[in-house]
Amino acid sequence: MTFKNDLILRAARGEKVERTPVWLMRQAGRILPEYREVRAKMGGFKELVETPEFACEVTIQPVDILGVDAAIIFSDILVIPEAMGLPYQMVEAKGPWFEKTIKVAADVANMRIAQADDLHYVMDAIRLTKKELAGRVPLIGFAGAPWTIFAYMIEGSGSKTFSKAKRFLYTQPELAHQLLQKITDSTIHYLKGQVLAGADMLQLFDSWAGVLSPEQYNEFALKYISQICDAIKDVPFTVFAKDAHFARKQMGMLSCDTIGLDWTTDIEESRALIGNTKTLQGNMDPCLLYADYSKIKLETQKMLKAFGPHRHIANLGHGLYPDLDKDKVKYFVDTVKEFRF
Amino acid sequence: MTFKNDLILRAARGEKVERTPVWLMRQAGRILPEYREVRAKMGGFKELVETPEFACEVTIQPVDILGVDAAIIFSDILVIPEAMGLPYQMVEAKGPWFEKTIKVAADVANMRIAQADDLHYVMDAIRLTKKELAGRVPLIGFAGAPWTIFAYMIEGSGSKTFSKAKRFLYTQPELAHQLLQKITDSTIHYLKGQVLAGADMLQLFDSWAGVLSPEQYNEFALKYISQICDAIKDVPFTVFAKDAHFARKQMGMLSCDTIGLDWTTDIEESRALIGNTKTLQGNMDPCLLYADYSKIKLETQKMLKAFGPHRHIANLGHGLYPDLDKDKVKYFVDTVKEFRF
Repeated sequence: MTFKNDLILRAARGEKVERTPVWLMRQAGRILPEYREVRAKMGGFKELVETPEFACEVTIQPVDILGVDAAIIFSDILVIPEAMGLPYQMVEAKGPWFEKTIKVAADVANMRIAQADDLHYVMDAIRLTKKELAGRVPLIGFAGAPWTIFAYMIEGSGSKTFSKAKRFLYTQPELAHQLLQKITDSTIHYLKGQVLAGADMLQLFDSWAGVLSPEQYNEFALKYISQICDAIKDVPFTVFAKDAHFARKQMGMLSCDTIGLDWTTDIEESRALIGNTKTLQGNMDPCLLYADYSKIKLETQKMLKAFGPHRHIANLGHGLYPDLDKDKVKYFVDTVKEFRF
Repeated sequence: MTFKNDLILRAARGEKVERTPVWLMRQAGRILPEYREVRAKMGGFKELVETPEFACEVTIQPVDILGVDAAIIFSDILVIPEAMGLPYQMVEAKGPWFEKTIKVAADVANMRIAQADDLHYVMDAIRLTKKELAGRVPLIGFAGAPWTIFAYMIEGSGSKTFSKAKRFLYTQPELAHQLLQKITDSTIHYLKGQVLAGADMLQLFDSWAGVLSPEQYNEFALKYISQICDAIKDVPFTVFAKDAHFARKQMGMLSCDTIGLDWTTDIEESRALIGNTKTLQGNMDPCLLYADYSKIKLETQKMLKAFGPHRHIANLGHGLYPDLDKDKVKYFVDTVKEFRF
């Protein structure tokens, strides 16, 4: 397909770009009044995720309003545990909550391997959004990385330490591997389905990478991320493991195109560790967008220079915080788009 | 003073030791049934902190029960904001909560610089504990690092992102520096008072180091930690900045004796970054203590070998989690004590 703007795809593939492409994690969300309006009409977050027309509408909003170089399908990483047999609720101001969690071997045995069809509403939302976008910008699909999904399935909710999930790794490592493999297989089906439905790029989010030791991260996280990277061949693939500073060298060896970085990692050092065969994505501190316009401009330009003109996709080092000012967010996007090396 | 066991002081100073000393962050606390008994008699956590007889009792418990090589005075890092003019409550199962927080210049102006006398109950607890310990092991005093204290004073509670505190750094940097300086001056008074009262070692906890970028950590955190290190001359001094992987090289240049490490940092790499003039403390994942005894032994011995026989104080990379089994915690301590190079 021909895009009006394919900067992000070219940057991911390491091709030359006229300027650095930019998008924002959580760009479809509460910082936009237009999102909050759609949301107010719905019963809740999950209803929005599960209704393709609305998911499509909020996916396209940041393309129209912020002028970003990619859309990312509005969805949630926790649709996978649900499709495997663990339903969840999204509790307002608290986050996800699972009534059932995984404790023993029988629980793991009861988990089914999800197929793309189990998540037909995501596929429908992707198809609809692709049609509505009509080639303006590429559409990113995504999933949670197996360790992060596993962590929620054991813990049953968010956690500061994820100590229940980590206890499971220490006390039942073989069972942990069985569950991680089922999650991995489900995720591969899911991501392949997203590509068939029209996703132009994919990203894996390992939100809770930072609670594991380097050794455990190798054994219980990277091993499965690697399987997923190897299984996805048709579109550019990004791995973003938050706080996984210790795994940058190994991530450079994954068969993916782009590595996401958070703002605690030095750009030059990350480039040296990851090597020149990957595009880097990130890595501005979301809190910079609370600063005044001149500070936002200064720091954004500094970041762009540090990454250099190629193999960089500008983004934050984490999702947008809901109380950020839309105008400042747009100013970040505009600063990237106006910058020339 | 003469100690029956001064291993930890010698390890901190880089002197030769017969074996690696060991203590545990949060060793005085909920993992001990004996602590829970004392706690049940009291109105709450703060009453325990503020009553020297009880603080002394729970400080000594882990020396008796776990056989650790140091006691650490039972207290809380948030006594400093309280002494400066911001009282707080410790809400059961939720954590600290401040009714007033710092928002504008007048709030900062209203903060007084704390003197050691403002925290006489801590000094009394230290004096009493020193007497009761009678030289069995050294007593560690402590404080929160200025950035972490600042973060609570702005945020008013714990937070996943500390985005309010970080917003303050981005939007009111000069005011932030004024408040950080007041916290630093208060902390120096407080720590000097602890040494006068009898503390044999000191530790600074920068619990929320990991939410800052390397650049902000230099400007708003290390600058003040450095002032504190320079002001404390009489006892070995430890700096533990959790998740500050990015600051290890700079921490090697502080005028302190020991750097604490969390479990996400590689031991060999940390030694290379920090250099040979510092003792390293840590860095076992607390969740290892959920594993079975053989795994605890294996991983603990692996850690000891990686750090080597000198300039190491064995500890976890974070405080003990309250649901850990006392026997497993003791097994970790015993494994360290029985190990010989």
